[in-house]
Amino acid sequence: MKAVVHTGYHTFPSLKEVEKPTPGPGEVLLKVAGAGACHSDVAIFHEFDEGLNPQMDPEFILGHENSGWIEELGPGVQGFEIGSAHLVYGPVGCGHCRACTRGQDTYCENAAKMPYAGIGLGRDGGMAEYVVVPARNLIPLGDADPINAAPLADAGLTPYHAIKLALPKLNGGGKTALVIGLGGLGLVGVQILKALTGATIIATDMKEEAMAEAEKLGAVTVPGGEGQVERIREITGGKGVDAIFDFVGIGATVSTAMKSVARQGRVTIVGIGNLSPYEWAFLTTPYEAELVNTYWGTVEELHEVVDMYKAGQIVPQVATYSLDEALEAYQLLVDGKIAGRAVIVPHQ
Amino acid sequence: MKAVVHTGYHTFPSLKEVEKPTPGPGEVLLKVAGAGACHSDVAIFHEFDEGLNPQMDPEFILGHENSGWIEELGPGVQGFEIGSAHLVYGPVGCGHCRACTRGQDTYCENAAKMPYAGIGLGRDGGMAEYVVVPARNLIPLGDADPINAAPLADAGLTPYHAIKLALPKLNGGGKTALVIGLGGLGLVGVQILKALTGATIIATDMKEEAMAEAEKLGAVTVPGGEGQVERIREITGGKGVDAIFDFVGIGATVSTAMKSVARQGRVTIVGIGNLSPYEWAFLTTPYEAELVNTYWGTVEELHEVVDMYKAGQIVPQVATYSLDEALEAYQLLVDGKIAGRAVIVPHQ
Amino acid sequence: MKAVVHTGYHTFPSLKEVEKPTPGPGEVLLKVAGAGACHSDVAIFHEFDEGLNPQMDPEFILGHENSGWIEELGPGVQGFEIGSAHLVYGPVGCGHCRACTRGQDTYCENAAKMPYAGIGLGRDGGMAEYVVVPARNLIPLGDADPINAAPLADAGLTPYHAIKLALPKLNGGGKTALVIGLGGLGLVGVQILKALTGATIIATDMKEEAMAEAEKLGAVTVPGGEGQVERIREITGGKGVDAIFDFVGIGATVSTAMKSVARQGRVTIVGIGNLSPYEWAFLTTPYEAELVNTYWGTVEELHEVVDMYKAGQIVPQVATYSLDEALEAYQLLVDGKIAGRAVIVPHQ
Amino acid sequence: MKAVVHTGYHTFPSLKEVEKPTPGPGEVLLKVAGAGACHSDVAIFHEFDEGLNPQMDPEFILGHENSGWIEELGPGVQGFEIGSAHLVYGPVGCGHCRACTRGQDTYCENAAKMPYAGIGLGRDGGMAEYVVVPARNLIPLGDADPINAAPLADAGLTPYHAIKLALPKLNGGGKTALVIGLGGLGLVGVQILKALTGATIIATDMKEEAMAEAEKLGAVTVPGGEGQVERIREITGGKGVDAIFDFVGIGATVSTAMKSVARQGRVTIVGIGNLSPYEWAFLTTPYEAELVNTYWGTVEELHEVVDMYKAGQIVPQVATYSLDEALEAYQLLVDGKIAGRAVIVPHQ
Repeated sequence: MKAVVHTGYHTFPSLKEVEKPTPGPGEVLLKVAGAGACHSDVAIFHEFDEGLNPQMDPEFILGHENSGWIEELGPGVQGFEIGSAHLVYGPVGCGHCRACTRGQDTYCENAAKMPYAGIGLGRDGGMAEYVVVPARNLIPLGDADPINAAPLADAGLTPYHAIKLALPKLNGGGKTALVIGLGGLGLVGVQILKALTGATIIATDMKEEAMAEAEKLGAVTVPGGEGQVERIREITGGKGVDAIFDFVGIGATVSTAMKSVARQGRVTIVGIGNLSPYEWAFLTTPYEAELVNTYWGTVEELHEVVDMYKAGQIVPQVATYSLDEALEAYQLLVDGKIAGRAVIVPHQ
Repeated sequence: MKAVVHTGYHTFPSLKEVEKPTPGPGEVLLKVAGAGACHSDVAIFHEFDEGLNPQMDPEFILGHENSGWIEELGPGVQGFEIGSAHLVYGPVGCGHCRACTRGQDTYCENAAKMPYAGIGLGRDGGMAEYVVVPARNLIPLGDADPINAAPLADAGLTPYHAIKLALPKLNGGGKTALVIGLGGLGLVGVQILKALTGATIIATDMKEEAMAEAEKLGAVTVPGGEGQVERIREITGGKGVDAIFDFVGIGATVSTAMKSVARQGRVTIVGIGNLSPYEWAFLTTPYEAELVNTYWGTVEELHEVVDMYKAGQIVPQVATYSLDEALEAYQLLVDGKIAGRAVIVPHQ
Repeated sequence: MKAVVHTGYHTFPSLKEVEKPTPGPGEVLLKVAGAGACHSDVAIFHEFDEGLNPQMDPEFILGHENSGWIEELGPGVQGFEIGSAHLVYGPVGCGHCRACTRGQDTYCENAAKMPYAGIGLGRDGGMAEYVVVPARNLIPLGDADPINAAPLADAGLTPYHAIKLALPKLNGGGKTALVIGLGGLGLVGVQILKALTGATIIATDMKEEAMAEAEKLGAVTVPGGEGQVERIREITGGKGVDAIFDFVGIGATVSTAMKSVARQGRVTIVGIGNLSPYEWAFLTTPYEAELVNTYWGTVEELHEVVDMYKAGQIVPQVATYSLDEALEAYQLLVDGKIAGRAVIVPHQ
Repeated sequence: MKAVVHTGYHTFPSLKEVEKPTPGPGEVLLKVAGAGACHSDVAIFHEFDEGLNPQMDPEFILGHENSGWIEELGPGVQGFEIGSAHLVYGPVGCGHCRACTRGQDTYCENAAKMPYAGIGLGRDGGMAEYVVVPARNLIPLGDADPINAAPLADAGLTPYHAIKLALPKLNGGGKTALVIGLGGLGLVGVQILKALTGATIIATDMKEEAMAEAEKLGAVTVPGGEGQVERIREITGGKGVDAIFDFVGIGATVSTAMKSVARQGRVTIVGIGNLSPYEWAFLTTPYEAELVNTYWGTVEELHEVVDMYKAGQIVPQVATYSLDEALEAYQLLVDGKIAGRAVIVPHQ
């Protein structure tokens, strides 16, 4: 079969002919419906250095945002219908530690001993005609379109997890939320906040088109630059924002977040923009305002993301490409020329 | 001044001339903007028996859903502007026990020693030209209309409190809520659930018009009677409802609620329809489904109700009457002829 | 190998020679260290009727409280050391629904389609020389004694789960807890409450020796019978108990619980004593006091139970028997002559 | 009457004759039982600069950790017995905003408009024969000794509040807590953690005597300096600490905390040691580990602190001084020569 393969550090991926895989014990073979191309793939093939993350040593097939139809069940797998559509939870841990048994493979206690970090992350991913995944990583899609669903595996689950942990701060009337950075994840974040809370949603970005998009989704927008924090605090009646999600994560945005947060609020840093630290100090931090980072999400949360997708509460912005066009799509991603999410569709 | 006075047990109230009150230490005199007529007033003057509840012995002025403009500050009161509009939190406890200091006078630890249960509940209420209330019971309304706001003090706060405590069950995608009984409180309940959660809201009532109203507010409706529980469970995909609010509280509705609830869900009984008990049994109850009652709410929650009112998330259905028409309004209430909430407006 | 087999409805089990099992995909073969004999086994072989619960149709090997040493890994299983000691999580669901992926097989969404309810519950259990279990059901014991640990799989996990869900009611100073029924589970419940909270623990039972035992563990005891509720409320300073755990679950104990609970408290019914219902009524229930049932627990919680066992915070009361004495132990259990937990130890 | 008065910025306080105060509306006159001398008093008279905090402009009587017997009730105050002993909640806000009505005057929304920050903090405090306090700030002590109780108003409430907000991280078996800095507040923190949780409590300080004290209270100690973080992580089995409380709050201790915390843990900075910021960065922070500061506590929490004091779960270390010795006690405090808490006892 054809597949998009990560062949070496600092090397653009190749479209290659590889062997069609076979599902092992507890695994399932999927005929791929869609595989999202994610910015973190670019980091993997262009930015990672050898030795830094041996779990993601090349070669392997890219693609950690996958959906597909069940083609074949491996030994010991029961309770699935051949041909049914599923979305795939990407992280794969040891399967039997505390974190894995609660469906949070992202925090697997044996991660250091695992040969890979996840599907398309060291282990073969979905940028191919077929992909093998653990049965427990499958989220049934029912009649919902699996192609548009594909990006939800990461671009949906990551903001959902961050927001779900912050919902206690947004429960009730008169709350406010702030989304910093209105790329793919940020705009999905606005949709999730709009659907799940009654909060006034403030959105900010340097690009006007991104802000226009956020306004269509129900957000109030504030441009970056001078007066940004003042304008945000004004919208909150001076008290500050109850829950802030920073999808950029550079020094300037973390600083904006911490200056905008309310007492007893929560700032979640989702994006890893660069490595410049934020200078946290007791006296410049509103009392009890929590500062946290976050990483991807859990299996059960991905079920809930699919529920929102089926209910029309999350509508991913998707542009589709054939497998033959996959490298082209990655090049557009590298060049910053893709709005929304590129999804590779191997079978038309 | 004129006032609607509860004069005796099992006696319809009178419109009487009484002395204009004076605010004591820590109190404020309000010029009444609106005073809601509530079904529980009817219970007070028609159903209560002497000796049952000495705190509500007549005579006193009725009206526990009040709003008004500040007319005069009592000794020791600071930080309020004369003429500013406020909604009034009705319960009045001792003011210094654990419950009162957290703003939950409904559960005052010294309630048994108090001479009254609240404003218009043993202590003079707002069905008059002026009313005296403790300063800490005031919720600023700003520019929002105080007349339509009046019923929120009970008909808004009661469903809000019940729902707020159940929000952890509704946080996230794919959740469902059920509202049983679509009178004044039930319809406000639908609005609150719609605004604050992403849940599918199911609403049920015996009256078609009430259900039509709920549908306009975004609910899916299921008629009472045969097949009701089956239809509700079907909407939830078979798993049952995550959070149920029963605004009726008779044997049949509690039973419907407990048959409709999901494992790990929550059933809150808000209405006290009659005294027939529900037969709770281990094996007929879904695992970990909580059964609770509830009563009114807290000062801080009333602030949040006002936030929702200002944001247009709660729109009370109000019919206004002058003070001279107040007894007529109560008679309509007794006769079951009022849709929405009757609000007495003493100053036109 | 020898095994204690459930051979027919309403039939005392048999000690039989059966074939040593082989682990399938994702499974592990354990050499059994200990297998607890539980009251619910007696219900299975003496009380269950044919047709009621086809998942537990005989024949199968009994024993759902198991520990053992890893003997052999089935296909696809990695990350375990041969010979290492583990406790076994008993419930076995489909493995891929929402409940199972969060480690709560007790609430498996596909339970109705499963051929068994758990290990020793339709599927062969641990009353044998060897047992096969899913790899993800293993909880590492390290150096801790696996024989005494065996009963924790149910008699530890069941009270732990009930208490963990109630901990928000017990967080902080001045709280009270009540344990009704001081058999095996109730006494473990007292230990867990003592270790994890600062609450005053009240314990009640009809048997004096059981109460003496609870006092040794740090509880204040109140005898059953006349004045029981008054005495309990007195200990709480009149306000009632914040969290109540009823390990008996008959009409009288549920009623005691509901009369003893504080406003905003929680009553968890753990035991299924008989089928007589409790008459729940709005006006006789303290405001916002939750009434719930409960069932077993999660994989992650069993890890935490093992943590408490290792720390000496839970000390099971165990009497050991060889496999040849297993039927004798069951007979003592039927006759109500076992104090603490009987653990079958197949390999001495 | 005699009183210890803060007379000017950068000026050691004076013992002066002042007028005995009179309680206003909603206030109570207390005959002082004990008044704790706190390090923050030293900051007030030696470190604060004019203009920085006009609410604490001199002159006023010091003492924000107070207890006493009710001597006289002001207008409008009811429900208190003359002569009964109470502990005093120190913060005083506007009394009618959201924060104040939930008993959290520390976060009063109108704080900027208030003429003082609290009792002994701009408004006359308890270092005198008598003190006037708002009635709602009184916490009944019953028969418990009011003199030893006095420091709990701050040195008890501050760690209690920090710990209470972190309890969700410590609920269950196998948890760990870390206390950094074993002065007065830190040692009370160890006692609270010991009483309310089952966590392994790790304590660290530069002083050996302080660590010996913590060990007596049940903590495991780790000396500061080289290998400190490694030793802490080792005690946690490598996973890191679930809840950390830093009572020092200098750059080095915050850094130790953030290096010791577990994924999904919580670091609460209680002490304000100096102004050097901590460099927070995404990649050096364990996932979802929260970083927060904190300030004092709520009225209801002070009730719970008193519950713990009455139950013997918190035992303050107190050295008593007469009012005539008060300046001497402050001098010892300035010189760092007081172990435990100095309490001024005006009436012997």
